[in-house]
Amino acid sequence: MSVTISPISDSLTQFFAQKNYSKVMVLVDNHTKKHCYLLLKGFLPSHKVITIKAGEHYKNLETCQQIWEEMTKNKLDRHALLINLGGGVIGDMGGFCAATYKRGIDFIQIPTTLLSQVDASVGGKLGIDFQGFKNHIGVFTLPKTVLIDDVFLKTLPQNEIRSGFAEIIKHCLIRDKSKWNEIKTVDLENQNLADLIQHSVKIKQQVVEEDPTEKGLRKILNFGHTLGHAIETFYLDKGKDRLLHGEAIAAGMIAEAYISFTKKLIDESTLLQIEEFIFAVYGIVKIRKEDMEDIVKLTLQDKKNIGNVVKASLLDGIGSCQYDVAINKSEMIKALNYYSGY
Amino acid sequence: MSVTISPISDSLTQFFAQKNYSKVMVLVDNHTKKHCYLLLKGFLPSHKVITIKAGEHYKNLETCQQIWEEMTKNKLDRHALLINLGGGVIGDMGGFCAATYKRGIDFIQIPTTLLSQVDASVGGKLGIDFQGFKNHIGVFTLPKTVLIDDVFLKTLPQNEIRSGFAEIIKHCLIRDKSKWNEIKTVDLENQNLADLIQHSVKIKQQVVEEDPTEKGLRKILNFGHTLGHAIETFYLDKGKDRLLHGEAIAAGMIAEAYISFTKKLIDESTLLQIEEFIFAVYGIVKIRKEDMEDIVKLTLQDKKNIGNVVKASLLDGIGSCQYDVAINKSEMIKALNYYSGY
Repeated sequence: MSVTISPISDSLTQFFAQKNYSKVMVLVDNHTKKHCYLLLKGFLPSHKVITIKAGEHYKNLETCQQIWEEMTKNKLDRHALLINLGGGVIGDMGGFCAATYKRGIDFIQIPTTLLSQVDASVGGKLGIDFQGFKNHIGVFTLPKTVLIDDVFLKTLPQNEIRSGFAEIIKHCLIRDKSKWNEIKTVDLENQNLADLIQHSVKIKQQVVEEDPTEKGLRKILNFGHTLGHAIETFYLDKGKDRLLHGEAIAAGMIAEAYISFTKKLIDESTLLQIEEFIFAVYGIVKIRKEDMEDIVKLTLQDKKNIGNVVKASLLDGIGSCQYDVAINKSEMIKALNYYSGY
Repeated sequence: MSVTISPISDSLTQFFAQKNYSKVMVLVDNHTKKHCYLLLKGFLPSHKVITIKAGEHYKNLETCQQIWEEMTKNKLDRHALLINLGGGVIGDMGGFCAATYKRGIDFIQIPTTLLSQVDASVGGKLGIDFQGFKNHIGVFTLPKTVLIDDVFLKTLPQNEIRSGFAEIIKHCLIRDKSKWNEIKTVDLENQNLADLIQHSVKIKQQVVEEDPTEKGLRKILNFGHTLGHAIETFYLDKGKDRLLHGEAIAAGMIAEAYISFTKKLIDESTLLQIEEFIFAVYGIVKIRKEDMEDIVKLTLQDKKNIGNVVKASLLDGIGSCQYDVAINKSEMIKALNYYSGY
């Protein structure tokens, strides 16, 4: 799958110079319609726009029905194209709708958040939430291409940048020690994001290419996500306590690094350098002792599990990660306590 | 993809001797639960049953939600198996639900109608109807295996056998002249179904293997289906006029053979032998002149089309078929008139 990192005017023009689609539609949410769509409108062939409401809350079957309806109403045939312009929700859900409309039409991802640029847009994981479970219904299908331009990041609040940065940290921790050594000495405001986007995309592409459907190696990309997802899901409906994805993953990475340490996969100094940097960027999520059981329960729905055994991806060094490591409830509770400083 | 035609007790026992699933669920409708499930229950490992209402009318997103809910409630993980026991609706919809649950779990097809044994179960086309359009939302995903046993056909009324036989006729017409010469001299009651199932499955497998996602050759399987689907859709909500799939396809094959003739792809004697046999088995569907425009309009939603041009698969001889042939409205109206004897 091709990923192009360049000004969107160039990459779009080049894409449409080579391709001829019967119809083109652009999927946006109310935010990306306002802040991003105008940046590329002029470089698109004749098209129609589908607008949905912004937010994970709308990443569900009802919104899919709305998208499929608009595609049907506009008589899209199998030779049509859907352009997904937005963050992870737009990319995951729009990709899913395209991959299932008439058994699949072409789609391209134009990720507009740091998180989706360094993570969601690459690798073909598509889906929607179902009954409270994240990405519970979906498919693996690669987009025709991914077009990345950091101009869109200028439209983002700082906490969104910080959220995306967590996946950059993850990519360094699981695959690239020297890059980790670079970033850990720089604070977020002074990171070279353009360079780091390229770096993250490259690592993710390599891993996904080796194992597109997550039978093995690809699972290392889930480092921090077993407890991270559970924490994110737990706080999903908690109003002002609500966490951005990367904030939850940051907490998950510390907790899972701690489990790596208790399983003697990494030594204490490695654990300490990881938590020091992550705490400095993200601070602490206050997890109440009485919520921990519920959070751990949520890890049971993790798609990597086999039966009732929770399988996690754990570091066995900086830049190196194992997958399919069974972890139990008490290890997870201990890790949440360690993270929280209890 | 493997297809096994043998007693279901043998094929199931053999399948589970080689595979180990974390959980097994069986999808049935109220008919197959009553007539088919008991024939295989004893050969299954411990499992749960999901029962849905029978009929194309329920091949929709609401039923998918019910199926996904049951899978979620039973905590199926990615290493679980769904067995689809039933006709095309169960296979298409159950397959779609399995292929999208946690981005895809294994499923096997046990087709229980002649139609699904010779057609739907082979080839990985999955999907559901949406807003009146057949199989509008779906994916291409191959089942782990297809297990066929003609014991299930004993539970079927004769008109269901006749419906499935239309696809057998089609497979002969598009790919095997000598088999066509065999079947055209025998009336339906005396056909060797066991042999014909094997024959149809083989042809379909060959075609699908060469072109799994219908970019080219696979389109020949749509002979009779451009107008046939439109006729089927048109009569879908017409109460007692309602047609079985094969009955509509039989009409579609005569109409499209006529278009093949008007385009000089086949000669008149070929057209006549085709219509003689099909009329003898199926009789005539009474299409009113005033409905023809509406039927032709429905062909515009055919998934094979490009833009507003209807592309059909037409015979250029017995046992030979072209695809991507543009046909226009007036040709289709004329063909419907010819078919109807106006």
